[in-house]
Amino acid sequence: MEGGLGLEPVLIAVLSGVLGLAVAAFLAYYVLKQSQGSERIREVSAAIKEGALAFLGREYRILAIFVVVVAIILGVVPALGWLISLAFVFGAICSGLAGFIGMSIAIRANSRTAAAVQKSLNHGLRVSFRSGAVMGMCVVGIGILGLSILYFAFGDSADFLKIIPGFGFGASSVAIFARVGGGIYTKAADTGADIVGKVEKGIPEDDPRNAAVIADFVGDNVGDVAGMGADLFESYVDSIIATMTLGMIAAIAAKNHLAILLVPDEATAWFLPILVAAGGIIASIIGIFLVRVSEKLQMGALLNALRRGTFSASILTAVFSFLAVYLLDANIGIFWAILVGLVAGVLIGESTNFFTSYAYKPTLRISRASQTGAGTNIVSGFANGLLSTLPPVILIAAAIMVAHHFADVYGVAIAGVGMLATLGIQDATDAYGPVADNAGGIVEMSGLPPEVRKRTDALDSLGNTTAATGKGFAIGAAGLTALALLLSYTQAVGISLAEISLLDPHVIAGLFLGAALPAIFCALTLNAVGKTSFSIVNEVRRQFREIPGLMEGTAKPEYARCVDICTRDSIKQMLAPGIITIASPVVVGLVLGPLGLAGFLAGAIVTGFILAITFANAGGSWDNAKKWIETGAYGGKGSEAHKAAVVGDTVGDPMKDTAGPSLNIMIKLISIIALVLAPVFAGFAGLI
Amino acid sequence: MEGGLGLEPVLIAVLSGVLGLAVAAFLAYYVLKQSQGSERIREVSAAIKEGALAFLGREYRILAIFVVVVAIILGVVPALGWLISLAFVFGAICSGLAGFIGMSIAIRANSRTAAAVQKSLNHGLRVSFRSGAVMGMCVVGIGILGLSILYFAFGDSADFLKIIPGFGFGASSVAIFARVGGGIYTKAADTGADIVGKVEKGIPEDDPRNAAVIADFVGDNVGDVAGMGADLFESYVDSIIATMTLGMIAAIAAKNHLAILLVPDEATAWFLPILVAAGGIIASIIGIFLVRVSEKLQMGALLNALRRGTFSASILTAVFSFLAVYLLDANIGIFWAILVGLVAGVLIGESTNFFTSYAYKPTLRISRASQTGAGTNIVSGFANGLLSTLPPVILIAAAIMVAHHFADVYGVAIAGVGMLATLGIQDATDAYGPVADNAGGIVEMSGLPPEVRKRTDALDSLGNTTAATGKGFAIGAAGLTALALLLSYTQAVGISLAEISLLDPHVIAGLFLGAALPAIFCALTLNAVGKTSFSIVNEVRRQFREIPGLMEGTAKPEYARCVDICTRDSIKQMLAPGIITIASPVVVGLVLGPLGLAGFLAGAIVTGFILAITFANAGGSWDNAKKWIETGAYGGKGSEAHKAAVVGDTVGDPMKDTAGPSLNIMIKLISIIALVLAPVFAGFAGLI
Repeated sequence: MEGGLGLEPVLIAVLSGVLGLAVAAFLAYYVLKQSQGSERIREVSAAIKEGALAFLGREYRILAIFVVVVAIILGVVPALGWLISLAFVFGAICSGLAGFIGMSIAIRANSRTAAAVQKSLNHGLRVSFRSGAVMGMCVVGIGILGLSILYFAFGDSADFLKIIPGFGFGASSVAIFARVGGGIYTKAADTGADIVGKVEKGIPEDDPRNAAVIADFVGDNVGDVAGMGADLFESYVDSIIATMTLGMIAAIAAKNHLAILLVPDEATAWFLPILVAAGGIIASIIGIFLVRVSEKLQMGALLNALRRGTFSASILTAVFSFLAVYLLDANIGIFWAILVGLVAGVLIGESTNFFTSYAYKPTLRISRASQTGAGTNIVSGFANGLLSTLPPVILIAAAIMVAHHFADVYGVAIAGVGMLATLGIQDATDAYGPVADNAGGIVEMSGLPPEVRKRTDALDSLGNTTAATGKGFAIGAAGLTALALLLSYTQAVGISLAEISLLDPHVIAGLFLGAALPAIFCALTLNAVGKTSFSIVNEVRRQFREIPGLMEGTAKPEYARCVDICTRDSIKQMLAPGIITIASPVVVGLVLGPLGLAGFLAGAIVTGFILAITFANAGGSWDNAKKWIETGAYGGKGSEAHKAAVVGDTVGDPMKDTAGPSLNIMIKLISIIALVLAPVFAGFAGLI
Repeated sequence: MEGGLGLEPVLIAVLSGVLGLAVAAFLAYYVLKQSQGSERIREVSAAIKEGALAFLGREYRILAIFVVVVAIILGVVPALGWLISLAFVFGAICSGLAGFIGMSIAIRANSRTAAAVQKSLNHGLRVSFRSGAVMGMCVVGIGILGLSILYFAFGDSADFLKIIPGFGFGASSVAIFARVGGGIYTKAADTGADIVGKVEKGIPEDDPRNAAVIADFVGDNVGDVAGMGADLFESYVDSIIATMTLGMIAAIAAKNHLAILLVPDEATAWFLPILVAAGGIIASIIGIFLVRVSEKLQMGALLNALRRGTFSASILTAVFSFLAVYLLDANIGIFWAILVGLVAGVLIGESTNFFTSYAYKPTLRISRASQTGAGTNIVSGFANGLLSTLPPVILIAAAIMVAHHFADVYGVAIAGVGMLATLGIQDATDAYGPVADNAGGIVEMSGLPPEVRKRTDALDSLGNTTAATGKGFAIGAAGLTALALLLSYTQAVGISLAEISLLDPHVIAGLFLGAALPAIFCALTLNAVGKTSFSIVNEVRRQFREIPGLMEGTAKPEYARCVDICTRDSIKQMLAPGIITIASPVVVGLVLGPLGLAGFLAGAIVTGFILAITFANAGGSWDNAKKWIETGAYGGKGSEAHKAAVVGDTVGDPMKDTAGPSLNIMIKLISIIALVLAPVFAGFAGLI
C-alpha cells in the first residue's frame, strides 16, 4: 500500500488499543480484589459461573466447526483464497475472545457487586460499572489491535482490499450465533421462570424455589454479556472496515480521476477511521473515570454520573476526530460527517429513552392500557414500538443527507464510525446492567435483607435505562454501517451508480426478498425462544409437582436440569437463523446476480432497521410499563393491571433481547458477506 | 387519442359493466324478497341499520369536506388544473357509492339470512353469498363504467394521461378514510364487547346484556362491508389506471423509438387492461352462479362450492385475457404476464390459508402455545405472521421477474390487473362473511334455538377461511399495483432508469423514511382502536354497574350510547392516519425531490407489504387458534388455554381488520398521489 505518512498513525492506533487493554486489566484487577461476600453468595455465584462456562464451551465448540468449514470454503473458491480465509478465522477468534473476556469478568463481578452493595449503593455501582467497563475496553482494544495486526501482516498485499472484509465476516459470523444462542438462552430461561414462578405460583422473581432461577442468571451472562460483547465487537470493526474499503476504493478512483478527492491517498483512507476510533478509545477511558458519584446519592445522581461520562466522551471524540482529519490533511467535510454521525447517535439514544422510560407519556399510556387487560396492553405497547421508529428514521435520513453532502458515500461510512467511536464507554454502561441484575438475583437467593435488594433494584433499573439508550444507539450505528457496507459492496463488485436502478426488476425483486429476511429471521428466533421456554416451563412445573416440599421451601429444586435444557436447546435453535442469514446473500447473489443482491441488501437494511427499533422499544416500554405499575400505579403489584403488564413483558422480552438486537448483526452480516463475495459476483449476471 | 380500433373495446367494457350492475340488481332483488323473519329479528336488524346509516352519513359528510378541499387545491395548482380535480371528485363519489350500495344490501341481508338459516344452512348460504355478490358486482361494475365515462369525456384531451390518475386518487382517498374509520369502529366495538363480556363477566359472545353488542354488529357492516367495498374498488381501478398510464407512456415512447413495442398504439394500451377487467367481470358472474350446493351438505361441501366458483372464474379470466390480447393484436408476452399475475394471486391466497387455518400446523402450534399462557400465545402468533411473509414475497418477486421478462414494466403492471380481474367473485366471498356474522348475532339476540346458531357459526367460520384467502390475494395485488404506480410515476415525472440509483443519497434517505411510514400508520390506527375500545369498555362496565337488573336480564342496556361513542370516536380517530398518509408523499417530494419520493414509495411499498401480510396472517391465525381450542382442544372453552387464546384474538383483531388492510390502501394511495403530482415534481430537485 502506498501512502505518505509512514507508520505513525497505525502506531497511535496500536498504542490506544494497548492502553484500552491496560485500562481493562486495571479495572479487572480492581473488581477481582473486592470481597466475594458470604458463603451463600459464593455458592450461588459458583453455580452461575459453572452454567455460563459450560454453555460458552459448548457454543464455541459448535462455532469452531462452523468457522473451519467456512474457512475451507473461502480458501478453495478461486476468486477468494486462503488469505481471506485466514482473516476470517482471525476475526472469529477476536470476536469470541471479546465475548469470553467480558463474560469471565461478569461472572466474577456479580457476587462482588452483591457483597459491595451491602456496604453502599455507590460501592455497588462502582464494582458493577467497572466490570462493564472491562468488557467495553476489551471490545475496542481487541478490535483496533486486530485491525492493526491485519495491516502489519497484509498491508503490502495487492489483495489487501479483499482481505480486510474477511476479518469482519469472521467477527459477524461469531456475533450472530453468540447473540442468537445467548439471546434464546436468556429469554427462554427468563420467561420460563416467570411464567411458572410469577404467574402460576405467585412467588417472587428470583425465588430460590424456582428451578429455572439459576438458568435465568446464567442467561444474563451468556446472552446480555457474552452475546452483546460479540455483537458490539462486530459493529465496531465492521464500521471501520466499511469506511476503510470505501475510502481506499475512492482514493484509487480519485487517483484515476474518476471521483472527487476526499482523502489524499489510500493510506489516509485506511488511517482516518482507525485514528477516529483510537480517539474514541482515549475519550471513552477519560469518560469512564469521570463516572463518579458522591457517597450520598439518589437515582437522578446515578443517571447523571453515567451521562456525564458518555457526554464527555462524545465531546472529546469530536475533538480528537477533528485532530485526526487535520493531521492527515483530509477534507474538512469528513469531520462534519463524523460529527453528524456522533450527534445523530446521541439523539437516537435520547429518543429511545423517551419511548421506553416511564418518566414519559408513551410508556405511561401502556401502563394505563393494562387496566383493560393483557390484550390492550399488548396492542398499546406494540403501537408504541412502531411509532418510535419515526425519530431514528428521520435522524438517519438526515445524517445520510448531511454526511453525503459533505463527503459523498465516504461521509456516510465515516458517520457510522463517528457514531460508534464512543463504544468503549457505551458498552460499559450497557454491560454493567446484567451484572447488577445478577447481583440482585444473588441477593434474593442468599436471603439478604430487603433494603439490600432495593439497592440492587435501583442499579438494575438504572441499567435498564442506559441499556435502552445504548440499544437505540447500536441500531442507528448498525443502519449506517450496513449501508456503508452496501456501498462498499457496490463499489467492489463494480456496479455503477446508473446500473443499480430502483426500476430494474432484479433490484425490485431483491428489495422484496430482502424486506422479508428480517421478518423471517425474527420469526425463527421468536419461535426458538418459545420452544425452549416451553421446555423450561414444563420442567419447572414437573419439579414443583414431583419434588415433595419444594413449594414449602424444605426441599431444593434441581437447578442443573434447567441449565442443561437451556444450553442444549438454545444451541440447537441458534443454528437455523444463523445459517439462513449467512446463506441468503449467497443464494440471492447467485440467482438474481449482483444487482439483485444490492436490492436485497437495501430491502433487508431498511426493514431490519424498522423492525429492530420496533422490537427494542416495544420491549423496553412493556418492561417499564410493568415497572411503573409495580411502583403502585393502577393497583400495584398483584393487581389485574399488573398481571396484564407481566404478559406484555413476557412478549417483549424475546423481542427486545433476542430478535431485535440480532437484527443489528444480521443486516451487517449479510452486507459484509456480499462485500467478501464481491470478487465472486463481479461480472456475473445471475442465473435469471 | 389516436388508435386503430374505434370504440368497440370500450363498448365491450361498458356492456360488461352494465351486465355486472344488472346481475347485482337481480341478486339484490332475490335477497330483498326473502322473509325478514320474526319481529324480534326485525327489531335487532333495525337497530343495526340505524347505527350503520348514521355512521356512514356522518363519515361521508366529513369526507365531503375533505374532497372539496382537495379538489380546490388540485384545481388551483397550475401544473394540475380543474379537469384533474373533476376526475378526483368523480373517483371519490364512485368509491363512496360502491361502499354505500354494498352496505345497504348487507344491512338488509343480515335479518334475511337469520330467517333463511332457520329453514336450512343451504338457504342461509345462498342469501348471504348473494348479498355479498351484490357488492362484488357493484364494485367492478361501477369501476369499469366510471373509467369508461372518463374515456368518453376526456379521451380526446391532450391531458388525458394526467386526468385518469385523478380518478384513482379520489377513489383511494375515500378508501383510506372508509377503511380506517370503519376498521376502528368495528374492532373497537368488538374488542370492547369481548373484554367486558367474555373476559370479565363470562357471558357469551353477542349476549343481549352486553351494551356494546349492537355497536359490534354495526361495526361488521361499516368496517367489513362498506370499508372493504371502498378498499377493493380502489384496488381495482388503481391497477387498471396504473397499467393504462404505463402502457400509454410506453406506446408514446415506442412511437419515438425509445422503447420496445409491446402494444401497437396508445388506444390499445388503454383498452387492454379494461378488456381484461371486462373479461374478469363476465368470468366472475359465471363463477357466482356456479356456487351451488345440494340440499344435504357439510362444511367441506360449502368450501368446495365457493372454491369451484372462484377457480372457474380464474380459468375463464385467463381464457378471456388471451382473447383480449389476441383481438387487440398486442404482444403475446402480455398474456403470459397476465397469467403469472393470476396464478401468483391464487397461490398467495393458498399460502395465507395454510398459515391461518387450523387445518394446518402453524395455527395448531399457536393453540399449543396457549397452554403456557397469553404471553407465549402472542409470541407464537406474531412469529407465525412474520414467517408467513416468505411465500408471498417469493411469489411476488417471481411474478415481477417473469412479467418483466415477457413484457417489461408494462408486464408488471398488467400482472396486477390479472391478479385483480376476478375481484367480482373474490369480493363476493369476502363480503358474505360479515353478513353471516351479523346473522349469527341476530340469531343469538333473538333467542333462537342453538342449532340455528350452529348453522350461522358454520357460515361464519367458512367466511373466515375465505376472508383469509381473499386478504392474501388483496395484499399481493396491492403490492403489484403500487409497484406499477411507482413505475408510472417515474415515467411520468421523467426520471430515467439511470438516475434513480439505489446509491443516490436522496433515494436512500427516501427509502428509510418510506420504510417507517407503514409502521407509523399502523401505530396510529392501533392506538385509535385502543383509545376507542377503552371508551367502550368503560361505558359497558358503567352500564353493568349502574343499570340495576342488567346482569340478571331483567333490564336492557342502552345500546345506542355505545353506538354513539364508536361513531364519534372512530370518525375523529380516522383523520390523523389518513391525513398523514396523504400529506407524506407531498412533503417528501417537496423536501427530497422526485428521486427521494421514488425511494420513499419503494421503501413504503416493501415494508407495507411485509407488515400487511404479517398483521393479516398473525391476526387470522390467533383467531383460528382460539377457534381450535373452542372445538375442545387443550380444555376447550373456559380453560386457561382458551383465556390465553382470547387475549391473542384481541390483539390480532385490530391488526388484521384495521391496520393490516389499511396498509394495502396506503401503499397505493401514496403511489397514486405521486403519479398525480408528477407534473408538479417534474424538473424539480427538492429543497435539499
